[in-house]
Amino acid sequence: MVPIMEDKFARRMRCMQPSSIRETLKVTEQPDVISFAGGLPAAELFPVQDVRAAADAVFAEIGARALQYGVTDGVRSLRERIATEMGERGVACTADDVLVTTGSQQSLDLIGKVFLNPDDVIITENPTYLAAIQSFQCFEARFVPAPTDDDGIDPDAVDRLASRVKARFVYVIPNFQNPTGRTLSAERRRALYEVAVKRNLTIVEDDPYGKLRYRGEAIAPIKSFDKEGRVVYLSTFSKTVAPGFRTGWAVAPADIRTRLVIAKQAADLHTSSLDQLILERYLRDFDNARHVERVRAAYGERYACMDAALTELMPEGYTWTRPDGGMFLWVTGPKGLDTTVLFRAALERKVAFIPGRDFFPDGAGSECMRLNFSNASMQLIKEGVSRLAELCRR
Amino acid sequence: MVPIMEDKFARRMRCMQPSSIRETLKVTEQPDVISFAGGLPAAELFPVQDVRAAADAVFAEIGARALQYGVTDGVRSLRERIATEMGERGVACTADDVLVTTGSQQSLDLIGKVFLNPDDVIITENPTYLAAIQSFQCFEARFVPAPTDDDGIDPDAVDRLASRVKARFVYVIPNFQNPTGRTLSAERRRALYEVAVKRNLTIVEDDPYGKLRYRGEAIAPIKSFDKEGRVVYLSTFSKTVAPGFRTGWAVAPADIRTRLVIAKQAADLHTSSLDQLILERYLRDFDNARHVERVRAAYGERYACMDAALTELMPEGYTWTRPDGGMFLWVTGPKGLDTTVLFRAALERKVAFIPGRDFFPDGAGSECMRLNFSNASMQLIKEGVSRLAELCRR
Repeated sequence: MVPIMEDKFARRMRCMQPSSIRETLKVTEQPDVISFAGGLPAAELFPVQDVRAAADAVFAEIGARALQYGVTDGVRSLRERIATEMGERGVACTADDVLVTTGSQQSLDLIGKVFLNPDDVIITENPTYLAAIQSFQCFEARFVPAPTDDDGIDPDAVDRLASRVKARFVYVIPNFQNPTGRTLSAERRRALYEVAVKRNLTIVEDDPYGKLRYRGEAIAPIKSFDKEGRVVYLSTFSKTVAPGFRTGWAVAPADIRTRLVIAKQAADLHTSSLDQLILERYLRDFDNARHVERVRAAYGERYACMDAALTELMPEGYTWTRPDGGMFLWVTGPKGLDTTVLFRAALERKVAFIPGRDFFPDGAGSECMRLNFSNASMQLIKEGVSRLAELCRR
Repeated sequence: MVPIMEDKFARRMRCMQPSSIRETLKVTEQPDVISFAGGLPAAELFPVQDVRAAADAVFAEIGARALQYGVTDGVRSLRERIATEMGERGVACTADDVLVTTGSQQSLDLIGKVFLNPDDVIITENPTYLAAIQSFQCFEARFVPAPTDDDGIDPDAVDRLASRVKARFVYVIPNFQNPTGRTLSAERRRALYEVAVKRNLTIVEDDPYGKLRYRGEAIAPIKSFDKEGRVVYLSTFSKTVAPGFRTGWAVAPADIRTRLVIAKQAADLHTSSLDQLILERYLRDFDNARHVERVRAAYGERYACMDAALTELMPEGYTWTRPDGGMFLWVTGPKGLDTTVLFRAALERKVAFIPGRDFFPDGAGSECMRLNFSNASMQLIKEGVSRLAELCRR
C-alpha cells in the first residue's frame, strides 16, 4: 500500500486555517529576535538605485501605457528577456512559451487549478516546500512523498510509487531545495525524466534558487531535455532582483500553458504592468549578472559563517546539510528531539528557525529544523547559532 | 424547480478552455478598430506625472524595504487609507478589516476558494460580470440568476430562489453594473440585506465603479448597514487611479477575512509591495478626489455622446440603459437578433462590442450587447455608433 496522507475532510480545512507555525512566526518579526526562520533575501543588496532609474525611465518613455491593463500572458518585451535567460540556463524557448506570474507562488496555485481534482496524488520530495504543500492542499490533493537523500529525490522510488498510484505530477525543487538545501544530481535529473516518460507523468520543476550557486558547476534543468513536453519549469525574479515585485514565470508545454493562462485570467487578469515594465527596463539598462554575482558571494560567505559556527558549537548528534547555493540549510538532531518544543525555547532566547515537521507531507521530521542564512549579518549568524547551540546542549 | 445551469462536466472545462469571444476579442485590439468591447479606463487621464513623483519618493525614502517581501494582508499604511476611504463611502471600518488584493479580480478567485465546493449555488444578477462567472466556474459552481430590471436585482425573487435552493452567496454589482450599467436602488439594497438575514446568506458586493457617478446622488453600499457580518465588499484602484497596479481590496467580516488571507497566502503570498507603496504615497501627496472628478466628468461626456448618437441613429426596436455612472451601457435589440452574428459583421466594419450571451449564466441575452464608452474619444464614439447603427438598420 502506498501511504496516502491525511483524511479528506482535514485537508482543505488545514489549508484554510491558520497553522500554529504561521501564528508563531509573527513573534520572529520582533526586532530583537535573530531570525533564521523566514526565507527573505538580503534587502541591503537590492539594486534600489538602478531599479529607481529604471522606474523613472518607464514613466518618462512609456507613460500611461505602463499603468493600463495588459495581456494575461505578460509584457512581451519581458517575456523575450526571460526566454533569453532560459536559453542561458540551457532551455531553448521563445517568449510564446513564457507566462509571467504574480510571483512563483502563483504558478503553484495555477497548476493546482489546472491539474488537481480532490484526492489527486502528487509525488514530492520528502521534505518539500511548505507553501507548495499549502497551495496544493487548497485543491484537496494528496501527497505521496518519495525518499530523498543528499542527491535529491530517488527516481527509482518515484518509479515504484508511480507504479502503484496514479499521480497527477511530480513536484521537485532541483537546486538548493527548500527546505534542505540539497541539489538533485545530473544523473538523477535524467533518471527522473525517464521515469516520467515511462509512467506518463508531468514534472513540475520549481527553480527559484538556481542562480544562487556559490560553489560547483550549474546543472542543466530537467526542462533542458524535455523533448516530450512533460515539464513545467518555474522561476522568479524574487531571488535575483527583488521579491517585492511579485514577478515570476512559468515555461510550459503549449497545451498546459494555454490552460495556465486561462486560469490566471480568472485569478488576477494579469501581473502588474508597472512592475513588469520596470523589471524589463532594469534588466535592459543594468548589469544584473554582476548584481547576482554579489548576492551569490554574500550568501556564500553567510553560509560558510553559519556552517563554521555550527561545526564549532553544536553538540554531538546534530548533523546538517552543506548546500552549494541557495538560502537554507537543514539541521537534523538526535532521535527523540522535538524541534517544535525547541522552537518555543529558542524564541525565549530570541532566536528563531522553522521546525521540520511542517515540511513533511507525512508528518515526519520532528527532529529537524530549517535555518535561513541569507537575511542576517555574519555577526548575528554567529550569535544566533551560539544561542541555538546552547539550547541544544542542554 | 430552480433552474440549475450547465452539466457538471462542462463547467470546469468551460473555465479552462479559451472561449470563442476571448479569441475574437484579440481582433478588436487592431488599431483601426473602434472598440466598445473592452472595459479599459481612459489612459490619457491617468495621473502619470503624479504617480511618477510618488514612485520616486518611495525609492528615495523607503528604499530597499519597498522591494522586500511583505505581509499577506497588505501594506498597513495603504490599508489605513483604504479604511478612511471606506468611511467616506459610509462603511465604518479599520485597517484590520481590509485585505489588499491583486486587483479586485483576485477577490473573486479567493472567495471561490474559500466558499465554493463543486455544485455549490451562487445567486447572481441576470446578466452579470463575465469574469466573475469565469472565476466561480473554476470552482465548479452553479449559477442561479435572479430577475433583474432597471432598479437592479429583485430581492423578492432572490427570496423565492433562496427558499428553494441552498445558495452559498448572492453576488451583486450594485453601482453601474457590468454589463448593464444599472444601479441597485437604495430600497432594494435594504430589502436584499433583509433577505440575506432571513435566508442566512452571505452577500458579495462588488463595487469597482461606485466613484464614477456623473449624475445623481451616491447610494450607500449594502456593507454600510451590515450589522451581522454578512457582506464581503470589494473595490479597486483600477478605475479611480489606474488598473496597471493590479491593486484592489476586500472588506470582510473577521472570520471570512481570515480565510481569505490564508487563501491569498497560498495564491501569491502578497500583492506587489512596490505598487502598494507607490499608491499609498500618491494618495497621500496628491489630490485624487480632484483626479476622480476629472474622470467622472470625461466619462459623463462620453456617455452623453454615445447616448445622443444612439438616439439619433439606431433604428426602431433597439433600446438601451441610461446609466448614472460607470463605463458601460447595454443595448437590447429586437427579438430574434443574434448579436454574435452581428459581432462578426461589425468587426468587418471595424467596430466592436461584446455580445450579450456571455454575461448570462443561463445562456439568454442573444439580442443584447455591451458597449463601453470610457475608452474612446467623442469623435470615435460618434463614428463607431454610426457604423454599428448602419448594420442594425440592415
